[in-house]
Amino acid sequence: MTRPNTRERILEVALDLFNHDGEAATTTNAIADTLDISPGNLHYHFRTKQSLVDALFERFEQRMLALLSDDAPDRIEIDDAWLFLHLVFETIAEYRFIYRDLTDLCHRYDGLHRRMRGILRLAMRTADLMLEALGRNGEMDIDDDARETLVRTMILVASYWIAFDTVLEPDSEARPDRAAWQVMSLVSPYLEGDARLAFDQLGRAYRRS
Amino acid sequence: MTRPNTRERILEVALDLFNHDGEAATTTNAIADTLDISPGNLHYHFRTKQSLVDALFERFEQRMLALLSDDAPDRIEIDDAWLFLHLVFETIAEYRFIYRDLTDLCHRYDGLHRRMRGILRLAMRTADLMLEALGRNGEMDIDDDARETLVRTMILVASYWIAFDTVLEPDSEARPDRAAWQVMSLVSPYLEGDARLAFDQLGRAYRRS
Repeated sequence: MTRPNTRERILEVALDLFNHDGEAATTTNAIADTLDISPGNLHYHFRTKQSLVDALFERFEQRMLALLSDDAPDRIEIDDAWLFLHLVFETIAEYRFIYRDLTDLCHRYDGLHRRMRGILRLAMRTADLMLEALGRNGEMDIDDDARETLVRTMILVASYWIAFDTVLEPDSEARPDRAAWQVMSLVSPYLEGDARLAFDQLGRAYRRS
Repeated sequence: MTRPNTRERILEVALDLFNHDGEAATTTNAIADTLDISPGNLHYHFRTKQSLVDALFERFEQRMLALLSDDAPDRIEIDDAWLFLHLVFETIAEYRFIYRDLTDLCHRYDGLHRRMRGILRLAMRTADLMLEALGRNGEMDIDDDARETLVRTMILVASYWIAFDTVLEPDSEARPDRAAWQVMSLVSPYLEGDARLAFDQLGRAYRRS
């Protein structure tokens, strides 16, 4: 069995501590202590806390960019949209320190703010193209103004469900499935035809689970 | 003209700096400097930054508790709901430092977390009673499961619109009107009868403004 190298172990522990206590409250010394390595050894791999944040954000960004897309899809199946939301929300839960204190992180790390804005805009574009495909295939009835508001709300909920859950239910686990259901529910009143039927079926399965 | 007393001026400046830079990044010395008073004078009125945060949160909480209610209303008029959302969202904009870094504030100030959770739960109760009244008067058609999800999403949007706007459009002013519209739009697909007509009229007026 290969042991993960030191750099990898540092990133894993940093992610755990950031997620649990927040990035601002986590010192590089605490990370070194948890790993039982010297601060000098940690410093050799990551010279500053910023370089740790950057490396973790880079991984998160790669995952998100692989999921999001500004290509217009031909057709959206409700089951595919459901799976897509799970993958996105599991990624968010895995890197929740970013969303936990997003305003503060963006304020303190300017490069991160620019890149996060890029991700949010691409997410809005992805959602808009998905809704457009549903409309084109006669599975959604919504006017342009309402769609614009809907897209904004979808990405707001996608970005802050984890912060909201943390404040409201601090002792419970992250619930990507409930968040995915919240976003599906935003879209549901506008669905028609096959998409409407598929959503109702999904709803029954979700409530049973 | 009466000059506001020192205590009042300290609270005003602290609120401004907290809203602008975040509470964590604002020192009591920066507040004293901005007011051109000595740190000792500030310390005489507020012994710790926590006591400043508490005093501001107290004011915010009073304003919110005066707006929210766990009395079941007989009837909801869409125009009243619209005004209500404006009042709530203007209060949130005025005390935006609370919502800006909510997870972090709740983590660092335990009493604040408990009280904030109380406000969020009361807000969910208020929204639920409003939707129930609409249903009772035949102005809304929604099943119980969907209503539960809708209430959760309404309060999530109400709590995080200002953080989301700050990250997405950092240079623009707070837009309580747009946030109120976002929340109204969540409810709109389920409206029927007079409420449906009133919402459409409101939508035309909102888009002209």
